[in-house]
Amino acid sequence: MTTARPDLPAPGSTPRTKGRRLNHNEVRDRAALYSVLDAGLLAHVALVDDSGQPYVLPVAYARDHDAVLFHGSTGSRLFRGLAAGAPTCFTVTLLDGLVYARSAFESSMNYRSAMILGTCTSLTGDDKAAALEVITEHLLPGRWAHARPMLRKERAATIVLSLPLDEASVKIRTGGPTDEPDEDIALPIWAGHIPMRTVYDDPIVAEDMRHDLPVPEHVAALSRSR
Amino acid sequence: MTTARPDLPAPGSTPRTKGRRLNHNEVRDRAALYSVLDAGLLAHVALVDDSGQPYVLPVAYARDHDAVLFHGSTGSRLFRGLAAGAPTCFTVTLLDGLVYARSAFESSMNYRSAMILGTCTSLTGDDKAAALEVITEHLLPGRWAHARPMLRKERAATIVLSLPLDEASVKIRTGGPTDEPDEDIALPIWAGHIPMRTVYDDPIVAEDMRHDLPVPEHVAALSRSR
Repeated sequence: MTTARPDLPAPGSTPRTKGRRLNHNEVRDRAALYSVLDAGLLAHVALVDDSGQPYVLPVAYARDHDAVLFHGSTGSRLFRGLAAGAPTCFTVTLLDGLVYARSAFESSMNYRSAMILGTCTSLTGDDKAAALEVITEHLLPGRWAHARPMLRKERAATIVLSLPLDEASVKIRTGGPTDEPDEDIALPIWAGHIPMRTVYDDPIVAEDMRHDLPVPEHVAALSRSR
Repeated sequence: MTTARPDLPAPGSTPRTKGRRLNHNEVRDRAALYSVLDAGLLAHVALVDDSGQPYVLPVAYARDHDAVLFHGSTGSRLFRGLAAGAPTCFTVTLLDGLVYARSAFESSMNYRSAMILGTCTSLTGDDKAAALEVITEHLLPGRWAHARPMLRKERAATIVLSLPLDEASVKIRTGGPTDEPDEDIALPIWAGHIPMRTVYDDPIVAEDMRHDLPVPEHVAALSRSR
């Protein structure tokens, strides 16, 4: 599996990820990159076809040291293109709130976003099997040991990709509005923000269950974590 | 502004959006396309640079009839590229739940996703002003009339893009796991799903407020809507 590489460049420090303008939301900190990626479940990944047309696909993923891992079907031409080494961009964005400034112009959203550029490696053998466990455990903590294990033919039908965190940028906006100039701040208009978060509701048992089983602890724990 | 066009093709019906394989989650229904777009606040938009490298950016957006509208800074080379007519892909994905199948292989997520292919038009004049209101009102309902209106110089610093819903695909997964074959369903393993949703917490007033104002109804209503 991928090992940690503390020598990697800071987010936002390569020519392709360095903004030409000052961006107040940019963070150049690998810990922030890890934190955003670990908090997300869903990424949006790009593939460009031969005509230059981009496609942006949602994928479930997990971070493993200095790479992100995600998987798709061998039947998907988009996944086959990524496995063949097409340049890609992998972006994770978490919405954290709505920002009500005095002016419509400064009104905004709070968010955390990480963008990774590079090319993927298609994993095989033990690396592939280990990556499937890492992805499953990130999305459904505790499920890997509980579920029916993956079969060889199921692994064969799956492409598992690893994208290194070599070239990334991170942007984070938090807190209330930043109105300016002073005349705007002086206006008698309510300003502030509304935090947003994702909650997990109670588990719903499958309709086709044939056994009377309690909700297992790894499922109940996630519902309680709201 | 964009007008409704009931003659547009169904989602998933063009060569570039039609899957080569059967996808059980695909929906070929324009009402579903509208519904997914209206439920989301955030899209991920692609731009390909001259070297063939794609970039995927998060953007706030709103649907207006048969187009999606979004905006960015005139200082962003990515937005300038989209304004110049570069081919793009605009994807919105909403995570609705975690699906615990008996097998790790069938474990999944519930989601609604819409993907739109095409090229953007950069709006000007009254269309641009109207689009900024539509976007603000989708993200922060009731705010447009309450906030300090947008100035001419603020509009001039903003690129407002319109992407028509001419070529789209929609995928939706709902409900519990779909284990197969029968031997899997017979396993004594708990299966089901956990619904996920986004909630809005109580509004937090800006630290630099100079007036003692109540939380306005348009802000309070959103916090209550959780």
